Amino acid sequence: MDQIVVKPRDVMSEAARTLPARYYTDPALFKAELDGLFGRLWFYAGRSAEIERPGQFVKRELNGYNVVATRNAGGEVRAFHNVCRHRGTQIGSIQCPYHAWTYDLDGQLIGAPHMEEVPHFRKTDYPLLRVHADEWDGHVFLNLAERPAALADQLGPLVAKFRPWRMQDLRLGRRIVYDVNANWKLIIQNYNECLHCPNLHPALNKLSHYLSGENEPLRPTYMGGVMDLRPGIETLSMDGTCPRACLPGLSSEEKRRVYYYCVFPNLMLSLHPDYMLTHALWPIAPDRTINVCEWHFHPSELARPDFDPSDCVDFWDMTNKQDWYVCELSQAGISSPAYIPGPYSNREDLLYAFDRFIVEFHSKG
Amino acid sequence: MDQIVVKPRDVMSEAARTLPARYYTDPALFKAELDGLFGRLWFYAGRSAEIERPGQFVKRELNGYNVVATRNAGGEVRAFHNVCRHRGTQIGSIQCPYHAWTYDLDGQLIGAPHMEEVPHFRKTDYPLLRVHADEWDGHVFLNLAERPAALADQLGPLVAKFRPWRMQDLRLGRRIVYDVNANWKLIIQNYNECLHCPNLHPALNKLSHYLSGENEPLRPTYMGGVMDLRPGIETLSMDGTCPRACLPGLSSEEKRRVYYYCVFPNLMLSLHPDYMLTHALWPIAPDRTINVCEWHFHPSELARPDFDPSDCVDFWDMTNKQDWYVCELSQAGISSPAYIPGPYSNREDLLYAFDRFIVEFHSKG
Amino acid sequence: MDQIVVKPRDVMSEAARTLPARYYTDPALFKAELDGLFGRLWFYAGRSAEIERPGQFVKRELNGYNVVATRNAGGEVRAFHNVCRHRGTQIGSIQCPYHAWTYDLDGQLIGAPHMEEVPHFRKTDYPLLRVHADEWDGHVFLNLAERPAALADQLGPLVAKFRPWRMQDLRLGRRIVYDVNANWKLIIQNYNECLHCPNLHPALNKLSHYLSGENEPLRPTYMGGVMDLRPGIETLSMDGTCPRACLPGLSSEEKRRVYYYCVFPNLMLSLHPDYMLTHALWPIAPDRTINVCEWHFHPSELARPDFDPSDCVDFWDMTNKQDWYVCELSQAGISSPAYIPGPYSNREDLLYAFDRFIVEFHSKG
Repeated sequence: MDQIVVKPRDVMSEAARTLPARYYTDPALFKAELDGLFGRLWFYAGRSAEIERPGQFVKRELNGYNVVATRNAGGEVRAFHNVCRHRGTQIGSIQCPYHAWTYDLDGQLIGAPHMEEVPHFRKTDYPLLRVHADEWDGHVFLNLAERPAALADQLGPLVAKFRPWRMQDLRLGRRIVYDVNANWKLIIQNYNECLHCPNLHPALNKLSHYLSGENEPLRPTYMGGVMDLRPGIETLSMDGTCPRACLPGLSSEEKRRVYYYCVFPNLMLSLHPDYMLTHALWPIAPDRTINVCEWHFHPSELARPDFDPSDCVDFWDMTNKQDWYVCELSQAGISSPAYIPGPYSNREDLLYAFDRFIVEFHSKG
Repeated sequence: MDQIVVKPRDVMSEAARTLPARYYTDPALFKAELDGLFGRLWFYAGRSAEIERPGQFVKRELNGYNVVATRNAGGEVRAFHNVCRHRGTQIGSIQCPYHAWTYDLDGQLIGAPHMEEVPHFRKTDYPLLRVHADEWDGHVFLNLAERPAALADQLGPLVAKFRPWRMQDLRLGRRIVYDVNANWKLIIQNYNECLHCPNLHPALNKLSHYLSGENEPLRPTYMGGVMDLRPGIETLSMDGTCPRACLPGLSSEEKRRVYYYCVFPNLMLSLHPDYMLTHALWPIAPDRTINVCEWHFHPSELARPDFDPSDCVDFWDMTNKQDWYVCELSQAGISSPAYIPGPYSNREDLLYAFDRFIVEFHSKG
Repeated sequence: MDQIVVKPRDVMSEAARTLPARYYTDPALFKAELDGLFGRLWFYAGRSAEIERPGQFVKRELNGYNVVATRNAGGEVRAFHNVCRHRGTQIGSIQCPYHAWTYDLDGQLIGAPHMEEVPHFRKTDYPLLRVHADEWDGHVFLNLAERPAALADQLGPLVAKFRPWRMQDLRLGRRIVYDVNANWKLIIQNYNECLHCPNLHPALNKLSHYLSGENEPLRPTYMGGVMDLRPGIETLSMDGTCPRACLPGLSSEEKRRVYYYCVFPNLMLSLHPDYMLTHALWPIAPDRTINVCEWHFHPSELARPDFDPSDCVDFWDMTNKQDWYVCELSQAGISSPAYIPGPYSNREDLLYAFDRFIVEFHSKG
């Protein structure tokens, strides 16, 4: 076996315990998170490439909202609540199928049959209801708050840190949607420690030693760290070889690592030497999360006639399923009336910090 | 195109807005409607022909009640709560399958094995619990109130108005049951305006111009109006021709129109020159309604060896599905926290009147 | 017909009525029963033979708890809450699949990777959480209370009464799991009267006259009685013949009877001359119960190359389904707002006594 230099971690506080069960099971706390975290932070809504041309659109559901994100004639991203201003019907795209009220790409009402017979009616009073929308390096973020902070404030140093990957150039190669019977926070916690890797992910552990790499301290709006590839391993794939070129612009150090960052509340961003993996979390219930996992590649690779991403898709699909398995077991165990919060190891530092963040959020209630 | 004389409608009030979302989504308001509207008004329960002979029976579920309607030896319609007076078992017909308690067609207990050993037991104390039942021209109506007004009071002028169709003579030709993910009121509102027809129902609009016809003012217990068939169109069917004779007894004006009336709370009655269409609404949840749609024909048509109702069944099945599609989109849009009540056009007068009726009902609470 | 000597029953009290509907439909009363009855009494969890060797285990879910029952190296039954003391994950067997925390068969934590780096961590602080476990003559019982009474106190005279059947020697021949849409109490009540047998179970009534046999008075923790086999009938099977030897050790009287006892809260134990039938009730919701039905036989019969239990399996499967049918009709009828508690016959004495037991339990709150 190759030699691994393991940096010791700070000693975990003696008082550190996992969260009480209600944080994972109580519908009221879940609603508070949807309103206060998912409702105030910018949340990841997909890739800019999905709405590349004016009029292209995607729909996203969150916390009872249904939002349409599109691009206007000026090339700006616009998002609207998918609710017709007439009788509330969900509009399919930009014309309501019920009575044909029609809106332009900035949300202005431009057609409303027979409403001209109503003397006091003015189209300008009934635009689609705007939702804040912004982009970061190829990612679309939305924000349901009335007056949100800037997206750049939420991302902070990440913007500069990940610029070398040129994420805006990458394009979707594969999407797998998982339906996980676990609280969204358990999926984030699972993502942010590799102590479970030797036991649960033997294949992953062969590619990257579970004690390698380092975490950043928790930031207010994201957390993450790096894993080192073992000597001779080129990327995270079924056999550790990489049939693709590395992404252009990466340093030699960046080519030997996988960066795993969770941007709160719902993006898990995993940057590999040759591809970008995204997990978008969509919380449905205290014990259920839809997890949209996508593999993104450089266009020059996607254009190759023999392009085949199965080496890394199969690897992560297998690893994902192992993770969802223990996330679901955790949700089940935590839901037992017998559950008592347990102790953390030193290597679960990000989880404990994330727990503090969650507790603080709820205590502000 | 043929020429349509469009009568102008009254101008919609400037204050008119569609109902707040809670009227379509709040379980408490839904329960109040089930108790106070469906529980006090006569509701449509089916056709007299379904219980033509003494002992024939139908079962209907509403608001947790399960009611058996039957015809007694004297030919009168009788309805009973489907609850055995012994240990509460639902009786299949008129004998409980559990301990064989047996009731006659008037609900009197006539057999109760081994209860004769109980000295204080008297069969007369345990009849089936009666539900008020009455008939109108071939339709069976039930009423869950203790002391309901007469069915004739609820129907008012409709009894005389629809006598020419001789509805009691018509018989079932086809039944399709729809499960619609929308509030029952959205289905009634959809039924009572044709402003959406050119956009949503191009086939219907070819048979009857969407601005033709006229509405009656809203009545306390029903609402409706007429649509004119376009010149050359014989009935509402796939191609506008009619392979059946007109119903006997109709005037020349009645043969050129379709009458669409909603008898609150749950019957939508559509009288065509040659057939009767009924929709029975069964509210299941704030966002779900079972809709039993039936096509009824004259017996002389049904008796023809080549009888084939597919021309009008296919037409309405297609139109129904278009309507349920937008009703479900409306329910989804109204359920968004972003929903704001919207403005009505002049041609949505019945909807606005119906909304006032609903608001007034809830305000009496 | 053979002659049956029917002993008269005491006259039912004039005030006796079946329970109000809320006892069968109210989620709060259901939860109180799960907490106070299922949570304090010993409940049947399966057969000792299922965990015959150390390390074999079964899992049982009840009231949100998930319990693992196993046998330790010393041969004693041990049960634990299936919740890892680390981050709450359900353990599959005795090693948690998430971070490989490992426990011995007495629940002691014997392995916790990387926790040795946490100076204040002591394995002895984190054993699996014990659940009380005990055995009766081949049956495993669990108890979720902190300080339960002895199992022997709960069983009382039953221990001596059923010793002749040597239940610990019997082994599983067949299992059928039923999902019944009825309250658990309706299933117990159905089990404890045969007044419904001539009407609902004509086949059973041919084997044992429904007025034969006798009930014991209700005991605090169980109730039951006997049915006599008709002359010429050997056991309860499709044709009343018995292809198996009687169980060794039974008296001539015991060979002519079927003993049906319900041990509260969840075991229905039916002892036949040649086999033992068990129903384990697992309440899921006020209106839903999982019913695990098992047929157990003497090992010498099971070892026969031509062993075929279908004569008695088919008989009881048919009879069970007839019973679940009326139990579900009862649940439906009781759930109607029109339901009024009804009168009992003299032969429903155990049901009325059981009702008093339930009412008294709830009145202690």
